[in-house]
Amino acid sequence: MESFVAEVSTNPAHTTIIFTLKETPGALAETLRIFKDKKVNLSHIESRPSKNKEGCYEILVEVDQSSDKDRVEEIISLYKRKAENIHVQDFNTHVKQNKESVPWFPMKMKDIDQFANRVLSYGAELDSDHPGFTDPIYRERRKQFADIAANYHIGEQIPRVEYSEQEVTTWRTIYNELVKLYPTHACAEFNYIFPLLQQNCGYSPDNIPQLQDVSDFLKGCTGFTLRPVAGLLSSRDFLAGLAFRVFHSTQYIRHHSKPMYTPEPDICHELLGHAPLFADPEFAQFSQEIGLASLGASDNMIEQLATLYWFTVEYGICLENGSKKAFGAGLLSSFGELQYCLTDEPSHELFDPSVTCVTKYPITSFQPKYFIAESFADAKNKLMTWTSTINRPFQVRYNPYTQRVEMLDTMPSVQCLVRDIKSQIFTLEEALGKLKVNM
Amino acid sequence: MESFVAEVSTNPAHTTIIFTLKETPGALAETLRIFKDKKVNLSHIESRPSKNKEGCYEILVEVDQSSDKDRVEEIISLYKRKAENIHVQDFNTHVKQNKESVPWFPMKMKDIDQFANRVLSYGAELDSDHPGFTDPIYRERRKQFADIAANYHIGEQIPRVEYSEQEVTTWRTIYNELVKLYPTHACAEFNYIFPLLQQNCGYSPDNIPQLQDVSDFLKGCTGFTLRPVAGLLSSRDFLAGLAFRVFHSTQYIRHHSKPMYTPEPDICHELLGHAPLFADPEFAQFSQEIGLASLGASDNMIEQLATLYWFTVEYGICLENGSKKAFGAGLLSSFGELQYCLTDEPSHELFDPSVTCVTKYPITSFQPKYFIAESFADAKNKLMTWTSTINRPFQVRYNPYTQRVEMLDTMPSVQCLVRDIKSQIFTLEEALGKLKVNM
Amino acid sequence: MESFVAEVSTNPAHTTIIFTLKETPGALAETLRIFKDKKVNLSHIESRPSKNKEGCYEILVEVDQSSDKDRVEEIISLYKRKAENIHVQDFNTHVKQNKESVPWFPMKMKDIDQFANRVLSYGAELDSDHPGFTDPIYRERRKQFADIAANYHIGEQIPRVEYSEQEVTTWRTIYNELVKLYPTHACAEFNYIFPLLQQNCGYSPDNIPQLQDVSDFLKGCTGFTLRPVAGLLSSRDFLAGLAFRVFHSTQYIRHHSKPMYTPEPDICHELLGHAPLFADPEFAQFSQEIGLASLGASDNMIEQLATLYWFTVEYGICLENGSKKAFGAGLLSSFGELQYCLTDEPSHELFDPSVTCVTKYPITSFQPKYFIAESFADAKNKLMTWTSTINRPFQVRYNPYTQRVEMLDTMPSVQCLVRDIKSQIFTLEEALGKLKVNM
Amino acid sequence: MESFVAEVSTNPAHTTIIFTLKETPGALAETLRIFKDKKVNLSHIESRPSKNKEGCYEILVEVDQSSDKDRVEEIISLYKRKAENIHVQDFNTHVKQNKESVPWFPMKMKDIDQFANRVLSYGAELDSDHPGFTDPIYRERRKQFADIAANYHIGEQIPRVEYSEQEVTTWRTIYNELVKLYPTHACAEFNYIFPLLQQNCGYSPDNIPQLQDVSDFLKGCTGFTLRPVAGLLSSRDFLAGLAFRVFHSTQYIRHHSKPMYTPEPDICHELLGHAPLFADPEFAQFSQEIGLASLGASDNMIEQLATLYWFTVEYGICLENGSKKAFGAGLLSSFGELQYCLTDEPSHELFDPSVTCVTKYPITSFQPKYFIAESFADAKNKLMTWTSTINRPFQVRYNPYTQRVEMLDTMPSVQCLVRDIKSQIFTLEEALGKLKVNM
Repeated sequence: MESFVAEVSTNPAHTTIIFTLKETPGALAETLRIFKDKKVNLSHIESRPSKNKEGCYEILVEVDQSSDKDRVEEIISLYKRKAENIHVQDFNTHVKQNKESVPWFPMKMKDIDQFANRVLSYGAELDSDHPGFTDPIYRERRKQFADIAANYHIGEQIPRVEYSEQEVTTWRTIYNELVKLYPTHACAEFNYIFPLLQQNCGYSPDNIPQLQDVSDFLKGCTGFTLRPVAGLLSSRDFLAGLAFRVFHSTQYIRHHSKPMYTPEPDICHELLGHAPLFADPEFAQFSQEIGLASLGASDNMIEQLATLYWFTVEYGICLENGSKKAFGAGLLSSFGELQYCLTDEPSHELFDPSVTCVTKYPITSFQPKYFIAESFADAKNKLMTWTSTINRPFQVRYNPYTQRVEMLDTMPSVQCLVRDIKSQIFTLEEALGKLKVNM
Repeated sequence: MESFVAEVSTNPAHTTIIFTLKETPGALAETLRIFKDKKVNLSHIESRPSKNKEGCYEILVEVDQSSDKDRVEEIISLYKRKAENIHVQDFNTHVKQNKESVPWFPMKMKDIDQFANRVLSYGAELDSDHPGFTDPIYRERRKQFADIAANYHIGEQIPRVEYSEQEVTTWRTIYNELVKLYPTHACAEFNYIFPLLQQNCGYSPDNIPQLQDVSDFLKGCTGFTLRPVAGLLSSRDFLAGLAFRVFHSTQYIRHHSKPMYTPEPDICHELLGHAPLFADPEFAQFSQEIGLASLGASDNMIEQLATLYWFTVEYGICLENGSKKAFGAGLLSSFGELQYCLTDEPSHELFDPSVTCVTKYPITSFQPKYFIAESFADAKNKLMTWTSTINRPFQVRYNPYTQRVEMLDTMPSVQCLVRDIKSQIFTLEEALGKLKVNM
Repeated sequence: MESFVAEVSTNPAHTTIIFTLKETPGALAETLRIFKDKKVNLSHIESRPSKNKEGCYEILVEVDQSSDKDRVEEIISLYKRKAENIHVQDFNTHVKQNKESVPWFPMKMKDIDQFANRVLSYGAELDSDHPGFTDPIYRERRKQFADIAANYHIGEQIPRVEYSEQEVTTWRTIYNELVKLYPTHACAEFNYIFPLLQQNCGYSPDNIPQLQDVSDFLKGCTGFTLRPVAGLLSSRDFLAGLAFRVFHSTQYIRHHSKPMYTPEPDICHELLGHAPLFADPEFAQFSQEIGLASLGASDNMIEQLATLYWFTVEYGICLENGSKKAFGAGLLSSFGELQYCLTDEPSHELFDPSVTCVTKYPITSFQPKYFIAESFADAKNKLMTWTSTINRPFQVRYNPYTQRVEMLDTMPSVQCLVRDIKSQIFTLEEALGKLKVNM
Repeated sequence: MESFVAEVSTNPAHTTIIFTLKETPGALAETLRIFKDKKVNLSHIESRPSKNKEGCYEILVEVDQSSDKDRVEEIISLYKRKAENIHVQDFNTHVKQNKESVPWFPMKMKDIDQFANRVLSYGAELDSDHPGFTDPIYRERRKQFADIAANYHIGEQIPRVEYSEQEVTTWRTIYNELVKLYPTHACAEFNYIFPLLQQNCGYSPDNIPQLQDVSDFLKGCTGFTLRPVAGLLSSRDFLAGLAFRVFHSTQYIRHHSKPMYTPEPDICHELLGHAPLFADPEFAQFSQEIGLASLGASDNMIEQLATLYWFTVEYGICLENGSKKAFGAGLLSSFGELQYCLTDEPSHELFDPSVTCVTKYPITSFQPKYFIAESFADAKNKLMTWTSTINRPFQVRYNPYTQRVEMLDTMPSVQCLVRDIKSQIFTLEEALGKLKVNM
């Protein structure tokens, strides 16, 4: 065989093999046949002229995640035997020394499709204590929504749903109660955005907005988009979506028998609680920071980040001219807790990531304790300071142009970041000069 | 009428009217009827609680660009008469004092659809000296391509085209000649990327690649995308596309009678000349910088930027270990000029934006003079230093999350930029810490 | 009179009057005579060609702080009456609306001389419970040290002191006890630097190092310098010194009768506790950040910053591979508390500026509670995040070239900062490129 | 011997030897005796606990530049023989492969004293065509000035000189002619600063200002200081001073017989031509950038930098609202050339470092060609872009706190730079927030 393995890299996100091939007719085809024989699928293949070997090509192949690990190992062994010169660079090596391998995480936005249907619970089936458990029509309806989510792929239009009059009535009940409280209980950013959703996305007592319309609106504000999901994801999967500014949103509505209660997220929670603030640039960046910190993190760190998410994005309170205002989605979509949370009944503490991240919380009752952020900007600063102490062996960066997560593990990738910063400093310098002129 | 105009802003990109409205039932509907009566279409409407007037809403309406200016003026006058308190903020005022208004420019990626069909020439009709002028089949074929471009909207899939055997033969002739020269005449970045296009996008002597496949590949590398276009755009429109990392690409091929000649860009020029380097991050950023500098620029400045584009993206040469290598698309797609340009026949000068931008050039013959960049990074640095001396009364920034151009004309917009820079510095600091550990 | 007042600015640091003067012979002299007549001393005078009035000069005079305020007011009134056109810009106006004026603070390093002798206590006199109260020789000795401090001016060499054998014995007792504990109880940065002080500054059991030698050493490491002081300064004055990287250091030693006890800072505390870490760049920056935040701050904020100083620079503990190590000077100079502080007897909490800054502490006994920093870098990040929430109406920056504090209250001053950042980004970009080459 | 050499580094600026020593009494003294025996002087010595060897110390010694190289080699060999484990890190290795070693350069401000007296010409002796050649009194006077320079050390006060009536007359003649031209021929920055020098530093027709007064003034504006020098330094030495913001200034005045002519710099040239602009922050930074680029540069690069210095700091012209104004010291101190340079007689080209740096120029006549900068900021940007293409194997940074040049050749040194940038971004963010409030 006219080839030899140059490098084997089993990166957290994918196994990659790089080998060098003499430029003879059919050499590549012959080599790739080995993969086919072993039934190992290749998800990506690249080649380039070898920098070290005259007249050779370097071939990079990425192995499909779903491939049998043993067969991949077999192929690697085969290559190793035949190769004259081997350099194995295994991303996991360093980490494994610490007795822990780096869990898989999505590297590009489309990777989200791989886990978006790994829902933990609900979806088509309901628990026995679910208000809709004995309602066959509701269960059938839930199956329809689960199918939409199951068939969806990133980048497609989210199917529009015609909600029944019964469903709209449930929505209306909740909507009308909440909009009374928003002016006094919700934070200023929420109250700034909410009327825009009324104008542009069909928010009204008589209409359940379509996910696609809300997603388009958010995209234009901050780049956030919604992805339909059938039920609860694991914390790891859910937070990974935020790294790409993708929010997994349910599309069904709670059971009509108990409009003020739901044991799971539903479209009322998503659209009234979550959607508005994802239109705020500072809040969007805060949410994404949590997501980026979660990629490849240990299970223990995922739990801490999920707790931070809980006490901010779900149950956060902030200060406004000294008064407490709600910004958490769990509060903004719950008539009862929105009133309760600002009273003196629960306790209130200043948001401090290192304390907040290890605080226990109940999930079926009102919260006994809330954490207060000075502002989204302040919360983000504190979060970044805290995440910089996380002991993760690599650092990532999100590239919104390519919708990929980039590993900052080589000097060129870091230099690229520095060039981007430099470019923005140029922009800043000029903008300040122009501001001066216009003042 | 329960309303009064608060602000009238005729921004270069759109006319915007902001007025405040007391929150009485039907007040908004009544007010908007005026626009309908005057047959002025609104392209966007927003509202928010007034910060100054208790119980009032501020309504922002954007007037469609196609609206009759006089009628818009009428409505503004009407509002002004009825208003108690008017604050008119006209973006153009400052600029008009300098005897020149800011030309319209796209503010969001979808705005490109508004000008993508303003082709200067060709398209369905051909000039009498065009090799295909007397070929009715070729002219019909060109019409098909023009229709694809005319019906295309940003974000859609580019229709796939089945190229005839005659068309593929033309492609093959050019392809085979050029690939012989690339290893010795093209820059290293080109030679690094070209095999990837062969592997991933169907580049081969026997196949004309599909624009959508190339666009998808570029999107994953740098976020650049291709948009089909029927022929030559004005410099202003073409450069504006680059600001959004959108490259307007023809889809037709030159006439088979003269495979080595074309009086206009065709798919050989686009895919062999341009596409490869748009996959290079540094080159992509360089191209976008030209685009951003062009937005709202004066006609004179547009000409200078188009000249810079000509001497770099089209006819650029760079140094590689002291040897000259071609990176301009006009060279990389022309068998004859690719050889000629590196000889001593033409003159070569160091790339210097302030000199290059005012250099005259022929468009129908080989270039008598080329400008040499040390590297893309160096060219970008020089370009940014040069553009910072441009006398434009505002500064813009591209937001890849929202695919919008943002005006940096207020303190909050500048602060947002600073926050982004800060966030990146955090990322950089951590990445360096991790690099150290891994070294 | 051929002049009129253009501007009166009573900046926190000084009263400034700017007036415009026609360029006639003797005009300036005549005008300045008014100040002389009123016995108002001028500390600084500048002039420049008027930008608005052809053939005129603008004269800026700074009034000496010690001047009688009433006479200054008289002069201002006089100018106002005579002036054709007055623009009064009073820095305090905005702040006074908030019922509080901005306290004076040093703007240049030499300004420190103005307050360095405002000692709160001790100096030549001692309290009745001071171990040296009844020792006339010790009191006389203390007077000598107080005189050195009183006569010292920033920039001069600190007079060298010959310590008596009795004094050296006191030093030796303390020194020998502490160096036993340092390897196990002090942080790594301290243990890295301490031997350098032994090599370069004469630290040894038998010699009390000279302040000037230590100051020179620190200057070369981080730019910190020592300034002799007779006793305790107010928190405001002391912290202000840190903004300039000036540390006020006592030069006398405690009374020989109680070598392990001192009710006040002495040279053992300064040189063994404080000096080593001021040679650490990260710690130096942390200390300066506290100083900069204190300039012009309210009394309440000064108290919070002094508390942060107490729990870090004086009594801070940090983590090192999971173990607690002391870095506070109060610990590193106290044999007893250095042992006690790392035991389980006191309580330990994570350093969190918003909590730490309002924690009460005893000053005459061992601390019941310590705050733990992850690292100096982490402490600095948290401090900066916290100080950014301080409600001070201006922002300052220290310019180490001019040894001045600059107000960032105008666009040009902010642009200058941005240019400095840009320049550093260039340096960074190049450095990374060189690192790569050398790896 | 209880020691072994761990590392030998012969850095461009100094030879450094690091060895590890077991902590036994007298071990260090014994080891250092070897240096004494070989008559090799140590300029600096440091020690720290060994990180690798329990109970050992690492000792770093810097060998005095003036030491005999052979003896240093002998000592190194001796250590190498005795050592168990050797790691030699030789800074020059990489560079020597390129057939060129890195020339020595000052690493701290005090190092300037080492070369400040290596004057190329003049000083006490004069050339035969010097106007003062035959004037024994003038030659004696020059010797006095040469002695001042020879005995001066960085940081000391520059001796004040009483100028004779004859000398003041020479000054007056020049001064009076030039001040007539400044308002129309000098750049705005010069005209802004010049009156301040009149007010604060004794600039007047009847007084030659004292170097110390001007130095103090500049120090307060930009941190630049003057250092007396007896005559012309080599370009390398002169430019190295600028890296530290130290300007070598002559103190003597030209011969009274030809007040409008001098074949060498004199105090008229320094104080009227150079000093004013060193008070401008942007110009100061520009000058320092040239200095920093020169450190350790090749002879060829030094020549190019000296040429850039010539065409900017000495003979630069800039644009002001479209009009040409002089900012070069050679122009601002020459009555004739100041008028000539703005006429159409000489040619004028835009400043472009890559062109300017290789342009030849006469030194004894008016310049035939001048280069025009758009502004100091623009010139600095262009210079930085150009210097980033210099092929120097290391990158340096000036630390104004420690007055040292830092090599950015390790990851920790780069991380320190990033932390500084981050700190400044925090300051910037806050400053912008405060600006907003104050507007």
